[in-house]
Amino acid sequence: MIRNQSITRLSRYNKALVRLKSMGFVKVFSDNLADATGVTPAQVRKDFSLFGISGNKKGGYLIEDLVVRISEILGKNREQKVIIAGLGNLGSALLRYRNFQKEGIRIVGGFDINPSRLKTAGEIPLMPLEEMGPFVKSNEVRIGIIAVPDTAAQQVLDNMIQAGIKGVMNFAPIRLHAPEGFIIRNVNLEMELELVNYYVNAQERSPVIGDWEDEE
Amino acid sequence: MIRNQSITRLSRYNKALVRLKSMGFVKVFSDNLADATGVTPAQVRKDFSLFGISGNKKGGYLIEDLVVRISEILGKNREQKVIIAGLGNLGSALLRYRNFQKEGIRIVGGFDINPSRLKTAGEIPLMPLEEMGPFVKSNEVRIGIIAVPDTAAQQVLDNMIQAGIKGVMNFAPIRLHAPEGFIIRNVNLEMELELVNYYVNAQERSPVIGDWEDEE
Repeated sequence: MIRNQSITRLSRYNKALVRLKSMGFVKVFSDNLADATGVTPAQVRKDFSLFGISGNKKGGYLIEDLVVRISEILGKNREQKVIIAGLGNLGSALLRYRNFQKEGIRIVGGFDINPSRLKTAGEIPLMPLEEMGPFVKSNEVRIGIIAVPDTAAQQVLDNMIQAGIKGVMNFAPIRLHAPEGFIIRNVNLEMELELVNYYVNAQERSPVIGDWEDEE
Repeated sequence: MIRNQSITRLSRYNKALVRLKSMGFVKVFSDNLADATGVTPAQVRKDFSLFGISGNKKGGYLIEDLVVRISEILGKNREQKVIIAGLGNLGSALLRYRNFQKEGIRIVGGFDINPSRLKTAGEIPLMPLEEMGPFVKSNEVRIGIIAVPDTAAQQVLDNMIQAGIKGVMNFAPIRLHAPEGFIIRNVNLEMELELVNYYVNAQERSPVIGDWEDEE
């Protein structure tokens, strides 16, 4: 069974490999990748075997090959076209979010029901929500971001599914319903802050004293 | 052991309770909360017992009491003051993010090294990064959001810790180091999109056909 954590680590290995390659390295050992990403060498080998990546202990891995293979697995070899529904504060920010651009994610269109939000067009076309379906179909977009208010989120998702979107990142704080096999990643920012707040309070009630340590 | 999922559910119960209260209800049973939040009644009772919330099976719980108790546990009875470091696209959007406001999270200040980003002041004061320390101390802020580029994130975190911040939500895609007991929640939006992309591709390679189903 492949878990989110393995995929997340694979993505980190990929970043480390790209860095190593740019520094002129040709080969890499599981120990190098372990050092670069803060996991054990055994974990690196386990992850690789999970995804069917083979190498040999003595000779290590060719960085070039690894990058190609991991990019294939992560789907980074194809362009990642993404649309955003909802151009409020968050949706607008994500249109231009640099960390997306760095990862090869290309936001190809933004949609909103409010015409006043469609004026700030740069390179990315901003369109009324009713044009989302045709746009997704003609541009063969498969991934969407839902940044509309929670009352509109299910309707927007239904429209996305009908248009051919296969997976979404959802910021609306509600449970969305989709056919099995459709991918939904819920990102609830207010909940993340509530968790920070909860743990800060819990920490003050019964503090832990200890060494410096990373937190994941 | 209290896990994130229990806290997340507690927060959902809280939202359902506030809704029920506004509809005029006085008492609630674990079955009602289960229905409202999509978990089993046993799970509701288990969560409550985990946090030391008692009730009786026959009589149910008084909504009023539950809301007070859960708010205490989640730290929602005190004002949640939060500062944001980094006023790029994402940081600026979070300054005005409505889902924060709905949850009683109050962004009290924004900080950036770039003076041109400090001009759009509304009600929230925007200040140069070097004023963060004194501001945090005099306003007794305990929670921060890190939305600076990854190269600046550790320095900003160090400054936050020195100023008295006890926990952060971090958007910079790097591993931050902090003393044990300091709370870090990493939110990596590009990684979330990569996960969606990975699963969409995996789904296309070996599709699952089945009933409609929620996804968490």
